[in-house]
Amino acid sequence: MKVGLVGLGKMGLNLGQNLMDHNHNVVAFDLNTAAVADMKSKGAEGAATLKELVSKMESPRIVWIMVPHSVVDSVIDELSPLLSKGDIVIEAGNSHYKESIARYNKLKEIGVSFLDVGTSGGMEGARNGACYMIGGDQEAWNIVEPIFKDTAVENGYLYAGKAGSGHFLKMVHNGVEYGMMAAIGEGFEVLEKSDFDYDYEKVARVWNNGSVIRSWLMELTEQAFSKDANLDGIKGVMQSSGEGKWTVETALDLQTATPVIALSLLMRYRSLENDSFTGKVVAALRNEFGGHAVVKN
Amino acid sequence: MKVGLVGLGKMGLNLGQNLMDHNHNVVAFDLNTAAVADMKSKGAEGAATLKELVSKMESPRIVWIMVPHSVVDSVIDELSPLLSKGDIVIEAGNSHYKESIARYNKLKEIGVSFLDVGTSGGMEGARNGACYMIGGDQEAWNIVEPIFKDTAVENGYLYAGKAGSGHFLKMVHNGVEYGMMAAIGEGFEVLEKSDFDYDYEKVARVWNNGSVIRSWLMELTEQAFSKDANLDGIKGVMQSSGEGKWTVETALDLQTATPVIALSLLMRYRSLENDSFTGKVVAALRNEFGGHAVVKN
Amino acid sequence: MKVGLVGLGKMGLNLGQNLMDHNHNVVAFDLNTAAVADMKSKGAEGAATLKELVSKMESPRIVWIMVPHSVVDSVIDELSPLLSKGDIVIEAGNSHYKESIARYNKLKEIGVSFLDVGTSGGMEGARNGACYMIGGDQEAWNIVEPIFKDTAVENGYLYAGKAGSGHFLKMVHNGVEYGMMAAIGEGFEVLEKSDFDYDYEKVARVWNNGSVIRSWLMELTEQAFSKDANLDGIKGVMQSSGEGKWTVETALDLQTATPVIALSLLMRYRSLENDSFTGKVVAALRNEFGGHAVVKN
Amino acid sequence: MKVGLVGLGKMGLNLGQNLMDHNHNVVAFDLNTAAVADMKSKGAEGAATLKELVSKMESPRIVWIMVPHSVVDSVIDELSPLLSKGDIVIEAGNSHYKESIARYNKLKEIGVSFLDVGTSGGMEGARNGACYMIGGDQEAWNIVEPIFKDTAVENGYLYAGKAGSGHFLKMVHNGVEYGMMAAIGEGFEVLEKSDFDYDYEKVARVWNNGSVIRSWLMELTEQAFSKDANLDGIKGVMQSSGEGKWTVETALDLQTATPVIALSLLMRYRSLENDSFTGKVVAALRNEFGGHAVVKN
Repeated sequence: MKVGLVGLGKMGLNLGQNLMDHNHNVVAFDLNTAAVADMKSKGAEGAATLKELVSKMESPRIVWIMVPHSVVDSVIDELSPLLSKGDIVIEAGNSHYKESIARYNKLKEIGVSFLDVGTSGGMEGARNGACYMIGGDQEAWNIVEPIFKDTAVENGYLYAGKAGSGHFLKMVHNGVEYGMMAAIGEGFEVLEKSDFDYDYEKVARVWNNGSVIRSWLMELTEQAFSKDANLDGIKGVMQSSGEGKWTVETALDLQTATPVIALSLLMRYRSLENDSFTGKVVAALRNEFGGHAVVKN
Repeated sequence: MKVGLVGLGKMGLNLGQNLMDHNHNVVAFDLNTAAVADMKSKGAEGAATLKELVSKMESPRIVWIMVPHSVVDSVIDELSPLLSKGDIVIEAGNSHYKESIARYNKLKEIGVSFLDVGTSGGMEGARNGACYMIGGDQEAWNIVEPIFKDTAVENGYLYAGKAGSGHFLKMVHNGVEYGMMAAIGEGFEVLEKSDFDYDYEKVARVWNNGSVIRSWLMELTEQAFSKDANLDGIKGVMQSSGEGKWTVETALDLQTATPVIALSLLMRYRSLENDSFTGKVVAALRNEFGGHAVVKN
Repeated sequence: MKVGLVGLGKMGLNLGQNLMDHNHNVVAFDLNTAAVADMKSKGAEGAATLKELVSKMESPRIVWIMVPHSVVDSVIDELSPLLSKGDIVIEAGNSHYKESIARYNKLKEIGVSFLDVGTSGGMEGARNGACYMIGGDQEAWNIVEPIFKDTAVENGYLYAGKAGSGHFLKMVHNGVEYGMMAAIGEGFEVLEKSDFDYDYEKVARVWNNGSVIRSWLMELTEQAFSKDANLDGIKGVMQSSGEGKWTVETALDLQTATPVIALSLLMRYRSLENDSFTGKVVAALRNEFGGHAVVKN
Repeated sequence: MKVGLVGLGKMGLNLGQNLMDHNHNVVAFDLNTAAVADMKSKGAEGAATLKELVSKMESPRIVWIMVPHSVVDSVIDELSPLLSKGDIVIEAGNSHYKESIARYNKLKEIGVSFLDVGTSGGMEGARNGACYMIGGDQEAWNIVEPIFKDTAVENGYLYAGKAGSGHFLKMVHNGVEYGMMAAIGEGFEVLEKSDFDYDYEKVARVWNNGSVIRSWLMELTEQAFSKDANLDGIKGVMQSSGEGKWTVETALDLQTATPVIALSLLMRYRSLENDSFTGKVVAALRNEFGGHAVVKN
């Protein structure tokens, strides 16, 4: 099939190659002309503008948007007037599912289908086999399924239903990921605080071979410890990029008790600080009622 | 009544005066002879040894032990052979209720009654009106009730039932205290992180006057902020002295879901560290699968 | 002062009387004409419409809105065109602080001041002395302070700063309340699961007299147990009316670790269900890997 | 090697066959004579008593104990006097690491080595390749390593160090498992409460193919949903068999903040109840201060 690929960052470049590996034609656009040239050198058609990209395709066009979260709306705004009824827009970044539903509705008004796609597996996945969670209209899905089937790992894609269901599923996936990572981290912290003298890389390895908790995350844990045996080189600052927070917010909206996911997020926030105001208040209170000594600043 | 008071630390000295204020006779003993002299100057009889203390009383003797947790057993061991059937031992420190049950059983074998007493209210309470939670035999309780009634604030004592029930109740009291303090601390932390510019002392004051969360702890919060408006002088290191941990351990034994008390304790532990190994593992994992930057040490 | 009171529900009626007790003049309006008549019988002027209410006052008018959350905006929309530059609108319901900021900005455009007021203390407080947390412009505040001073308990009001700060403070107050209530509840659950046989009313009473956790909530606990010794008559379904959720959402936005408040909210959600899907998944997994028996539905 | 196998339950029988598959000789004992006969029919020697089992082996004997947790001590007590200096006892059940340290010390006094072995992988693992975490003396370990190497999956065993480190590691493994399972469960509960209409088996499948959270537990999740699409047939009652609790208790002893593991355990306890006393108290309090309706029992 012919795919208009908008966005040639690391994910987009890898996906473009993945598509071409499977004999799909790619028309590639990015503001970064070097990236476009790179894709052309690998066999894609290039486009200098969104207009040119659209002009190089025939209806029903398939446009795959793989741009940073912050510019998705401006790309869609610029793209919409260029598209024709029946065209299909795929948005495969890390968008909030409510944004995806809004985009779906907006494009529906002009007869353009919109598919929201949560993508997991990182750059390596984009290149050699990703994991996709897809929402949107079934008819549009039926048309584009081959390009997902070809660029995913085996069984690595799911059409999950109506608009928003793809990004919702990806969001929850990340929420589960937060919880799993925290569980692994806490386990190693208990080992680290114990009287025993564990080799963490070896621990991760044995847990990856035959144990109940074997997992890709544990493999990555093994890999991380193989590079820095006690993680002495890094600080335990846990950044987050939004989807864990969205999961918790959604859980609150749905009145769902998700203590493990919520705590994994809150402990990330705690890790951003050297000290906490909560701690100061509690320490001050202990001093007030019990005369317990405080640690001076 | 005549009370043998063993242990003349700050709590014991205050309690001794409180007892004498209410016309009870005190025979005071401590290894610290200056403290004994102090009590004597205030009207107590002094004793240079436990033996002398016992000899200055007549059966049924009432011996009130107010010593650090770590020496309770040795005091009881030295005291037991000196006592007679029908004597009553009161232990009013911060003991684990299971220890109290064991002590009760041990003394029961020689016909001595044992009352386990959880004491709240700090030194000020010991001096002018404490809060007591008491376990042990009803008959012994009936004998000693007057000295509790006299030294407690009004309605500030409860005979709670069989051996251990006093210290159990005090333990749970402290668990609730942990949770309340954490709730207060978290609230102020949200204020502190907000865009608004609150005067925390005034906030605590308004919350103490007519609001749902008015409480002694909030009064202490007001007091703490009156001394150091933003608690700049202290670190948020939250020590703990055991009873919160006992509460959580007991909750686990009883298969009771106590997330708030448990988290208030775990966050205290978190506050003891500048960094966490959990954080390192999670940060390393984010780097492994997503190429997210880590903060270097 | 003369106050236009919009909304004569239970809170409004009590507040109106409280104002008149302190020699303020009240012009009262509600769609419910019986409530208006009631207020008139107590000495207020009545108004059949917002227009009439406004017409019975002179600039700078003070209009106090005490209506259900869901109709605040429509009241303000109807009221705004009737007001003059320099008038002051007080909104004292349970609004989200972001709504209050939006209302402040909207009214500012027409020169009307807006004060957001969080009110604590319930109907009893509205009648005899409430607790107020107030945000908005200082100049407007200076004008209306007397009516807050008169209707609050002593020290029971705080002008907290710029627009939104009043409702923000009330929101956090409720977050702290959630945490405190959960801590108390958990404590009693540990007592209830223990081998001891506590009289919960007496426990609450002793904790209210001299202990560290004495508080109005503990007094209410005592009161609740005095009516139903083991709370046999009620289910442990914990509803929530929004401000706890807002606190947690705000904490997430501010990247603040508030595990105790968050868990107190999540456990409320858990209490709304007889069973949990999380539980089903975990039970199924235990069965899959360990052959552990499941409980059949 | 020749291994004396004590305990022919499901785990023991599978392990025995696994050992014999790899050309080790097994002397099998169990009180259940049918199980002994079964092992004999598969090529093992049988023993009617521990004494006979010991007598059929030569020093240094290797005795592998695979019995229920509750009888480990009585087996060791009966076995000890029969053993000789230099013999090795392997205990591969789910023991607390402190018990293992005590057993190690006790057997050390008579010159017998003790290895504590945490075993993961279930019956299937015992039969075809388990995952072992081993603690105890290095010299003893060097002797028995071949039988672990042969009966484990590749890389599926780790000698972790001094006595207790094997069971400690297994305990923490289970703690991590609790957290991971809860994270997965919570994720599916968010899906279940959403407006979307997910096929959970397909969700688990896509998450197992290329996503960050692919794991054996997610494979089991897929399997569970393949049998009962919405888990309608089972209740969400989450039993626990102790190691999660031990992990949390140990974390408390080590002052380690493990909120995710702790909450996964507490939510299991919550699932054992239809209602909670915490909930009753909170509901009663809401009624007391705000007049909020309670749900009657």
